[in-house]
Amino acid sequence: MGDPFVIIGGDAAGMSAASKARREDPDRDIVVFERGEWVSYAACGMPYYVKGDVETLDDLVQVTPAEFRTERDIDLRTEHEVVGIDPDSQRVTVTTNGERFEQPYDTLLIATGAHAIEPPLDGRDLDGVYTIHAMDDADAIQDYIDEMEPESAAIVGGGYVGVEMAEALDAHGIDVSVFEMLPHILQPFGESAATVIEDHLRDQTVDLHLETSVDGFTGKEVVDGIVVDEETIPVEMAIVGVGVAPNVELAQQAGIEIGETGAIATDEFGRTNYENVFAAGDCAQSRHVVTGEPAHVPLALTANRAGRAIGQTVTGTPTTVGDIAGTAIVKAFEYGAARTGILDEQRARDAEFEPVSVEISAPTRAHYYPGAEELTVNLVADQRTNRVIGASLAGPDGLKRIDTVATALHGEMTVATLETLDLAYAPPYSPVWDPVATAARVLNGRVERTE
Amino acid sequence: MGDPFVIIGGDAAGMSAASKARREDPDRDIVVFERGEWVSYAACGMPYYVKGDVETLDDLVQVTPAEFRTERDIDLRTEHEVVGIDPDSQRVTVTTNGERFEQPYDTLLIATGAHAIEPPLDGRDLDGVYTIHAMDDADAIQDYIDEMEPESAAIVGGGYVGVEMAEALDAHGIDVSVFEMLPHILQPFGESAATVIEDHLRDQTVDLHLETSVDGFTGKEVVDGIVVDEETIPVEMAIVGVGVAPNVELAQQAGIEIGETGAIATDEFGRTNYENVFAAGDCAQSRHVVTGEPAHVPLALTANRAGRAIGQTVTGTPTTVGDIAGTAIVKAFEYGAARTGILDEQRARDAEFEPVSVEISAPTRAHYYPGAEELTVNLVADQRTNRVIGASLAGPDGLKRIDTVATALHGEMTVATLETLDLAYAPPYSPVWDPVATAARVLNGRVERTE
Repeated sequence: MGDPFVIIGGDAAGMSAASKARREDPDRDIVVFERGEWVSYAACGMPYYVKGDVETLDDLVQVTPAEFRTERDIDLRTEHEVVGIDPDSQRVTVTTNGERFEQPYDTLLIATGAHAIEPPLDGRDLDGVYTIHAMDDADAIQDYIDEMEPESAAIVGGGYVGVEMAEALDAHGIDVSVFEMLPHILQPFGESAATVIEDHLRDQTVDLHLETSVDGFTGKEVVDGIVVDEETIPVEMAIVGVGVAPNVELAQQAGIEIGETGAIATDEFGRTNYENVFAAGDCAQSRHVVTGEPAHVPLALTANRAGRAIGQTVTGTPTTVGDIAGTAIVKAFEYGAARTGILDEQRARDAEFEPVSVEISAPTRAHYYPGAEELTVNLVADQRTNRVIGASLAGPDGLKRIDTVATALHGEMTVATLETLDLAYAPPYSPVWDPVATAARVLNGRVERTE
Repeated sequence: MGDPFVIIGGDAAGMSAASKARREDPDRDIVVFERGEWVSYAACGMPYYVKGDVETLDDLVQVTPAEFRTERDIDLRTEHEVVGIDPDSQRVTVTTNGERFEQPYDTLLIATGAHAIEPPLDGRDLDGVYTIHAMDDADAIQDYIDEMEPESAAIVGGGYVGVEMAEALDAHGIDVSVFEMLPHILQPFGESAATVIEDHLRDQTVDLHLETSVDGFTGKEVVDGIVVDEETIPVEMAIVGVGVAPNVELAQQAGIEIGETGAIATDEFGRTNYENVFAAGDCAQSRHVVTGEPAHVPLALTANRAGRAIGQTVTGTPTTVGDIAGTAIVKAFEYGAARTGILDEQRARDAEFEPVSVEISAPTRAHYYPGAEELTVNLVADQRTNRVIGASLAGPDGLKRIDTVATALHGEMTVATLETLDLAYAPPYSPVWDPVATAARVLNGRVERTE
């Protein structure tokens, strides 16, 4: 059989690839090195563990290490860190428990994930200041809340993590303040959706500080304040969530090409500049379905999908990893926001679109049906071609409608097509014109048709 | 200005056309003849009025006759029945209040709708036996329930109306029995979805009689029984809901072409065999996006969309009415079912597809997130081309996901594309792989790829 299929990293991309390769080829040697203890875990579920909606961290694990080893016959080695890759001799260097060894590979998958960005903040090391990225972070935060019973918390960064953790901490009766450098939270969701969520967060008594830079934290051993504009606001806990960056050092040191986004460059099969070295998940670039250009959107589905495709490719059935549309959805207390495609005007112009957009608000059910809620839709198209290029939704309900637009993006549909889609209507589920179709109808009236 | 744009029928298609034509051309003469009193009403809301979720029938009216007349400057004449069309002299004959007159037209829109099919049932005229199609029906049913306080009801037909009325009557504490001739209720939704809803109806103590023909009703003045297989089952009320048929007599008598579906034949602009005579809504055919063949699916969105397009076409901007995918959604107590495209095997074969399908059940949220419900997905593709041709969903939640498949049908996407769509994931909204993508993934494994 020769050397094994070696995978660096045992989360979504790595374990999807390992599992798919095993199903396709029962005889293949598959070795996974994971530097931590946890594998195949739903990191996205951590805020709900902290909130108390999910009872144990084990609930977030899809498949246990034992199941991978016995049921799927995968040589999974946790607490094994790969510290070097030599693409020429086709080997990785591994350390575990103070030992070091070389492992030859036939094919390599780099699925090293991403890490929480650590901005240079004074007092970051104080007790009570956390990032939330690894499973241990969630446990540490949970323990701190149980032991210290903080009454106030600062969240640095108004992205997914910031918004989800605001909800989680609020559920413990903690007064939450969110600090965001930019004029709006949830930057990838655009101003339209962000404004709806900001209003809702304020209604939920979250103290929002926009366009506010944080200098650091104060405290002796335990954090007791956050320093903002040379002023100290007392807080008893803090979460730093300013985004993630791909783990690419290992690849970079091995001469594997890093793309313009800072993540590992790959082709449509997830292959790097080395024929038998693949990369997938939060450490790798994808291709954006709207622009055709490389993009780095580290999300769970992308990782799962790419891992699965690579597992298929390396066992003999070449399978593309699929383009991404940057589709995302986030819950914020009783509201949520969703997005897909290109919303940012400058980004649209950089991709040579002439963006034109519309914002509408429409009910999620027939206006007379109980429980109809307002959904805010922001739809963006290219003025020259009438092609849909992006959308956001925000409101208490109906957010999975973003999938209609995501599907339209994959189909390169025009606004005119989106307007005339035969979408499902019955009073309990939608108005006659679905909010997405209504937005398309309004936008279509504004777009200069040159088709 | 010449003769006016005349519209026969003041519901969804007719009033959408009138309103759009008015917006596009402030000077156009627009005359609408409606034989009843109600215009622009949401017939789909009637079961929820009977149930008690909607307070008054007026709540179901989008725009009142007075608003059409004053705000939109539309010459709307209620209680005016068109009894003849002469396409050669371009006139319609109208009766009102015992009078009769001729109205010339420049352009005509036939939007005469459909009527409830009346199967030949003994005792159909007894008090307490209703169809539900016009707004007056809903009021009569509501009044009967209030006055007679029936404790049991029979519903003849397990289609939309049957299922929705079962929920509505049950809400009044009435014991409901549903009688369906076919082996399953909700025939257009396919066996997969129907079975899920049947189980749920039984859980809700609805007495389901499948493959059961009804002979008629017994009673003196008021219904007191339903006759089935020569047996009489006592009931104190009955609803007959066995479907609708297009109102085409007027068109037929005028020599306007009726299509193979029994509805008025139209081209992509909603035009009949007469250049200046259009037809739209429940009386007209549409083109099916999957087969490219004529189809008759009398639903609200189709009517609204076609009316709007025709309003635009007749005022100088030719606009296609849009294809339909037969997308539909129906609520049944705490569950619901949704469908799009071609599900029926014979119908698929008639359209020269080689259907292959899969049924899966998947959670609507992350497995660990509170409130995750099982959604049953039935996905159908053409084996030769791998193209998606239809789908159904059934379960307590997440049914608007059918729009993802409807959009894929409009884009003529393959199962492989559906599998790799970048759909929205976060634990409160979806598992990592959306149930629709999961179905595509499983089906894709079974389809012989010949692309």
